[in-house]
Amino acid sequence: MKKGILIVLSGPSGAGKGTILAEAKKQGLEFALSISVTTRSPRGTEVDGINYFFKTHKQVEEMIKNDELLESKKVYDQIYGTSKKFVEDNLNKGIDVVLEIDTQGALEVKSKMPEAVLIFIVPKDLDTLHSRLVGRGTENEEQVAKRFGKAQGEIAQAIDYDYLLINDKIEQCAAQFINIIEAERLRTSREINKQIIASFN
Amino acid sequence: MKKGILIVLSGPSGAGKGTILAEAKKQGLEFALSISVTTRSPRGTEVDGINYFFKTHKQVEEMIKNDELLESKKVYDQIYGTSKKFVEDNLNKGIDVVLEIDTQGALEVKSKMPEAVLIFIVPKDLDTLHSRLVGRGTENEEQVAKRFGKAQGEIAQAIDYDYLLINDKIEQCAAQFINIIEAERLRTSREINKQIIASFN
Repeated sequence: MKKGILIVLSGPSGAGKGTILAEAKKQGLEFALSISVTTRSPRGTEVDGINYFFKTHKQVEEMIKNDELLESKKVYDQIYGTSKKFVEDNLNKGIDVVLEIDTQGALEVKSKMPEAVLIFIVPKDLDTLHSRLVGRGTENEEQVAKRFGKAQGEIAQAIDYDYLLINDKIEQCAAQFINIIEAERLRTSREINKQIIASFN
Repeated sequence: MKKGILIVLSGPSGAGKGTILAEAKKQGLEFALSISVTTRSPRGTEVDGINYFFKTHKQVEEMIKNDELLESKKVYDQIYGTSKKFVEDNLNKGIDVVLEIDTQGALEVKSKMPEAVLIFIVPKDLDTLHSRLVGRGTENEEQVAKRFGKAQGEIAQAIDYDYLLINDKIEQCAAQFINIIEAERLRTSREINKQIIASFN
């Protein structure tokens, strides 16, 4: 059974991560979008196992202690994390998994699973980044400036990723995302390819 | 100016390197196939600068001494090598370069130019490899067995390459070859992408 590939997709707010993943699906890419574990309460119509795996603080702290989370972070008083079991079950079934997480989480994942593919997505340029943040119209100048600075800080960390995607045209960007994954399948470091090489001797 | 990518393509005799490159060109890939430097004499209709760069032994030994060859090998009494200048001139003009060389040369290139992309191509399976060698009909059993053993030895070194291509269907294999190059353009290690990341700060 060919193992699935773990893909981490990061990028500043407004870069279009969700849009690109939806377009990639439309173009035929199949993958499981990782469902995070969280301590916060379900909102509105959220369902356990669909939007998040809703856990108690005690359960999540136990998971961290038992090294069951691939990565985790605190957001105010709540914890969010990625379950190792969720990722490994899918990969072992040959299903690629996409984690939409921040840079800190991405590097944590890479350190535990070096075969993970890290992809960072940015908007076309600085002006586009700014206008996406301003365009909301719901925040004051100071808030926009703060978000903008945060986004710039995140983009500076793209250098630690494997690939850079520029979201200029959605269809092209999604096609490149697919290209990356299909090329990664051919790496000699993938178990299936090591087996194929060995089969000739 | 976006720098070109250096691609090394290796594989046993009969794997279809030439066929795949021709099909990739048909599918729209543009690249310069590296022209080797050699000490042997031109044969038939061969032209200097087209089939090879024909040099004297003294000239090639001088090139080796001045570190002007990216890699070189002796075949009986003749020397074959890849000119650094040829490669760098093309890469600097934004043209991708493909080197069709053996595994020893490939590793030499990778040690001098770590950004080179190493691709190893194999036939579908062991039987296909054997039948491609037998199919010539011009050699005796012992010669075929010798070539077969040599091919197996080469394939074992595929593990040192970055990517493995299985030449089962030509169009698909060429498409994968193109995929690899297009994904490699997006690596954060490429200078152009480092500049794009920096442009956001």
